[in-house]
Amino acid sequence: MNLKSLIRDIPDFPKPGILFRDITTLLRDPEGLRYTIDIFTQKCIEAEIKADYIVGMESRGFIFASLLAYKLGSGFIPVRKRGKLPAAVHSIEYELEYGMDCLEVHQDALHPGSRILIVDDLIATGGTAKATAKLVQNIGCELVGFGFIIELRDLQGRKHLPDVPIISLIEY
Amino acid sequence: MNLKSLIRDIPDFPKPGILFRDITTLLRDPEGLRYTIDIFTQKCIEAEIKADYIVGMESRGFIFASLLAYKLGSGFIPVRKRGKLPAAVHSIEYELEYGMDCLEVHQDALHPGSRILIVDDLIATGGTAKATAKLVQNIGCELVGFGFIIELRDLQGRKHLPDVPIISLIEY
Repeated sequence: MNLKSLIRDIPDFPKPGILFRDITTLLRDPEGLRYTIDIFTQKCIEAEIKADYIVGMESRGFIFASLLAYKLGSGFIPVRKRGKLPAAVHSIEYELEYGMDCLEVHQDALHPGSRILIVDDLIATGGTAKATAKLVQNIGCELVGFGFIIELRDLQGRKHLPDVPIISLIEY
Repeated sequence: MNLKSLIRDIPDFPKPGILFRDITTLLRDPEGLRYTIDIFTQKCIEAEIKADYIVGMESRGFIFASLLAYKLGSGFIPVRKRGKLPAAVHSIEYELEYGMDCLEVHQDALHPGSRILIVDDLIATGGTAKATAKLVQNIGCELVGFGFIIELRDLQGRKHLPDVPIISLIEY
């Protein structure tokens, strides 16, 4: 199945000059959704990624991380923006193109030695994935891989990430 | 499996006087996640809910709606807050306790006659579910049901919803 044909390009979103890769057209397609998740699962198994928990970033990351957790028999742990998680959190601040952002995870969700796979819909410059990796590594977790539906190769996001297996299904 | 034992109560979140039902502890538990999704799927099948699309609301709704779409062989369609979806949208404004909020769906995601199941993590007063129902019904879609993991019965949210099957897994 040609997954790329199910991704829609939206020019100038969220701001002028950005070509947004819209996955909602893929998610809407039952066969596309099924195939994406099945192939994603298969690639994790082939890469021998064995994770206790799949960590997904708000909010599109929630979709693929929870599906992968279900398929792989792992737990799903959300990483959210500041103030969204109800219990005590660990936080990490990280730089965006303009200004700073903050990601949080529940303090009691992860423990030293937990094996973590980080999943998001897309990797561009890698800033969010790198911050999430730091967040879980600060807790003493063992990072066992990254998974993305889309990878924007030109932006070289993967070179900012720790040296663990990185799976991506669709490359631009 | 006692799903309620996997839900955590957090007093005074997001504001004083509110008892927040935290599902992150359920999502983190591999058996709890697996069982929740399997029983949710089974209940939809037993209720003979046949949906072309599962509509999920940002952002916890994304988790359960996309999982259910995968399991039932439907497409997943996200309903998001204002300005988050990249293409042309239909919008609906609705009243919150204080002020207004807005939900949006892509204009080309749904069509008259599309059979829709609306899924969210929790129904309280039903405001978000009611607005989402109106949003899809305004397009001419056929609403075939609602699915929630948690229902706060005291708040009587279901009495504000259209007369279609309403599935909830855990009641308080």
